[in-house]
Amino acid sequence: MRQSKLFTKTRKNAPRDEESKNAQLLIRAGFVHKEMAGVYDLLPLGLRVVNKISNIVREEMNNIGGIEVQSTALQKKEVWEKTRWSSDIIDNWFKTNLINGTELGLAFTHEEPMTVMMKNYISSYKDLPVYPYDIRTVFRNESRAKSGLMRGREFYWKALYSFSKDLEEHNEFYEKIKDSYKSIFNRIGIGNMTYLTFASGGSFSKYSHEFQTISDAGEDIIYIDKNKNIAVNKEVYSDEVLDNLGLEKKNLIEKKAIETANIFSIGDKYSKPIDLKYKDEEGNEKFVYMGSYGIGITRLVGTVAEILSDEKGLIWPESIAPFQVHLLTFGKNENLFRETENLYHDLKNAGIEVLFDDRDLGPGQKLNDADLIGIPYRIVVSEKAAENGGVEIKMRDSENVEFISADRVISYIENQGNNE
Amino acid sequence: MRQSKLFTKTRKNAPRDEESKNAQLLIRAGFVHKEMAGVYDLLPLGLRVVNKISNIVREEMNNIGGIEVQSTALQKKEVWEKTRWSSDIIDNWFKTNLINGTELGLAFTHEEPMTVMMKNYISSYKDLPVYPYDIRTVFRNESRAKSGLMRGREFYWKALYSFSKDLEEHNEFYEKIKDSYKSIFNRIGIGNMTYLTFASGGSFSKYSHEFQTISDAGEDIIYIDKNKNIAVNKEVYSDEVLDNLGLEKKNLIEKKAIETANIFSIGDKYSKPIDLKYKDEEGNEKFVYMGSYGIGITRLVGTVAEILSDEKGLIWPESIAPFQVHLLTFGKNENLFRETENLYHDLKNAGIEVLFDDRDLGPGQKLNDADLIGIPYRIVVSEKAAENGGVEIKMRDSENVEFISADRVISYIENQGNNE
Repeated sequence: MRQSKLFTKTRKNAPRDEESKNAQLLIRAGFVHKEMAGVYDLLPLGLRVVNKISNIVREEMNNIGGIEVQSTALQKKEVWEKTRWSSDIIDNWFKTNLINGTELGLAFTHEEPMTVMMKNYISSYKDLPVYPYDIRTVFRNESRAKSGLMRGREFYWKALYSFSKDLEEHNEFYEKIKDSYKSIFNRIGIGNMTYLTFASGGSFSKYSHEFQTISDAGEDIIYIDKNKNIAVNKEVYSDEVLDNLGLEKKNLIEKKAIETANIFSIGDKYSKPIDLKYKDEEGNEKFVYMGSYGIGITRLVGTVAEILSDEKGLIWPESIAPFQVHLLTFGKNENLFRETENLYHDLKNAGIEVLFDDRDLGPGQKLNDADLIGIPYRIVVSEKAAENGGVEIKMRDSENVEFISADRVISYIENQGNNE
Repeated sequence: MRQSKLFTKTRKNAPRDEESKNAQLLIRAGFVHKEMAGVYDLLPLGLRVVNKISNIVREEMNNIGGIEVQSTALQKKEVWEKTRWSSDIIDNWFKTNLINGTELGLAFTHEEPMTVMMKNYISSYKDLPVYPYDIRTVFRNESRAKSGLMRGREFYWKALYSFSKDLEEHNEFYEKIKDSYKSIFNRIGIGNMTYLTFASGGSFSKYSHEFQTISDAGEDIIYIDKNKNIAVNKEVYSDEVLDNLGLEKKNLIEKKAIETANIFSIGDKYSKPIDLKYKDEEGNEKFVYMGSYGIGITRLVGTVAEILSDEKGLIWPESIAPFQVHLLTFGKNENLFRETENLYHDLKNAGIEVLFDDRDLGPGQKLNDADLIGIPYRIVVSEKAAENGGVEIKMRDSENVEFISADRVISYIENQGNNE
């Protein structure tokens, strides 16, 4: 894409009311626009990152048998009345105004609507297990929405709901989703900073599991055992629990962390009041055993912006970067500009995503913008680079600058990719 | 995809409260689930159709310079106060309940938020024109939501907003979008039933333009000149207008039609109160000239279901079908089942999307389901077909049945595609 066609502009300063580092950087670099506290429009660069994360999540969910649906934002009272409609339970639930006597809920999760829907499709053991999931916007009216994209009032997430015959079938899937979440965090580039964490479980299991990503901007405290590669949330941290999990206090380190995903056993908490049953092989009616598995997609954008960035700007892992290559051209030399155009087309033809800074601006501003936007490969075509035998190539997360001939750029990038 | 993994089931009857043919068919075939009047979850098959239509729309918008963003559902009062906040003007606007004194609008369109947002990015003539667009869910609390997916209270649409320097630059784009919409309707397979229609214009142009698709289920009346390939909406139909457009009454036929897309000139209706200005080449400040261009994506799903269907079920054009091929296997013969498995894999490897009915059901039910679901190619592997020298192949919209050898299936499908 030509940067001259990208309508967003970088800004020196974020809005004054924006306190969080992640939103400050994402606003300054033109990834998001702040509509109000906790509500951000995705601009073209931000949408590209969200789509890349969504596609990784989608692939991993499909790999373990997930099947994508798109449930609705509007939810009716009757669906929730047997469980959680009372606003005492969920005080940050948006509901609509009354129009023609209608009051509707605005989706903050989908356990109940999904359970009601599945009554149409589950009646026998042959219909189980089934794993519908959703990648969509949900709404929570957080009173303290000060953490940028890490705690939105309107945010993008993936939620999968598992419908199983019994605890055993449920547990089998529960382990699979743990592995798929680990794979997601590795692919996104923050696997080494993210820990499977034991947290409070509710009525159907001793613990739930969270994935917590270490960050000083996190709102949770966790205790990590690096050797065992697991952690415990402060909310359940006690001698008894450590004993239970075979952990020793002396091996644990305390860290602030961001809850980037969670997995819950629900059992028949909703299938019972909503009466979602199936007939087993003997013809006995049983309640479906459920689980719920969330991963915050815009929260991940905020998390990556928070932890992978430096004083100059954002630093995107290649797998979720809006573009792989930021191609810059300096000066008014027509031959050089033509050479850059050719390189732009060659890269695109090789299937490499390129942001081409074709704007009529000085080198300083182009370099600053490139650092702020944070695309992995920066390639500069300039007279200085030509004197050094080609084009300049630099990774965003390294200080190392190389000069290579333009016709070697594609193989250079492809080989770097293979080495990772 | 294996049909045994598709959790949805076909149903003999739609819910009793569902009056519209399109929603009845889409519910019975398992494309959507009705959450409440005018609010439908997209099930796996329905989501695939929506994604295909969205991708066609996306390609066409990108081709004419559109740039995709994702704006928010929550909208703040301040953004709308200067224009349309008063509920007297828009009586079907959802707003949220008051929580901590907050009352928010739930997006029914984005002219105003988009205009406010663009104040960050437009200041000079060099920043214009720009064409951000959105493919997203919007909300309208229709009091009479009885037309299924053709008039949702929560629906999926594409909305593009044009920001131009002046009327001339605006008009140039306006013509481009007309052509791109024609291309969209052709690609979706309803181009020959859809007419560019003159409708009422508002304060900035004599007419707006709609795309109206002929259907008895439509809520509009249009007068079509088939030779000139245009139509006039009843709302502006008069001798003066016909004269103006060079149309003659005797050449017009009256039809009911569905408004599937519309394009509007807005001028400075919003840029003036919101103060979105740019400096021209002489340094003079001018208001940005705007336009707004919508296309109803879930409405198109409903429209296609309404007009391309028969007494047996849905009939999807290949470009937007959930799968290209519905592969059925009959009987318990293990060799035949293995042959079907092989064909399934060969088709998938050739890049053809296949729904493989591997369920343990009789031929009658499988054939009925295939007709109801409406995938373009139906391939049956059975003993009868084997006796006839291969597999049976039939198009959903034809009664013609052919028998061809299994190894010719892929080239048969690819050649059909080329002939279209």
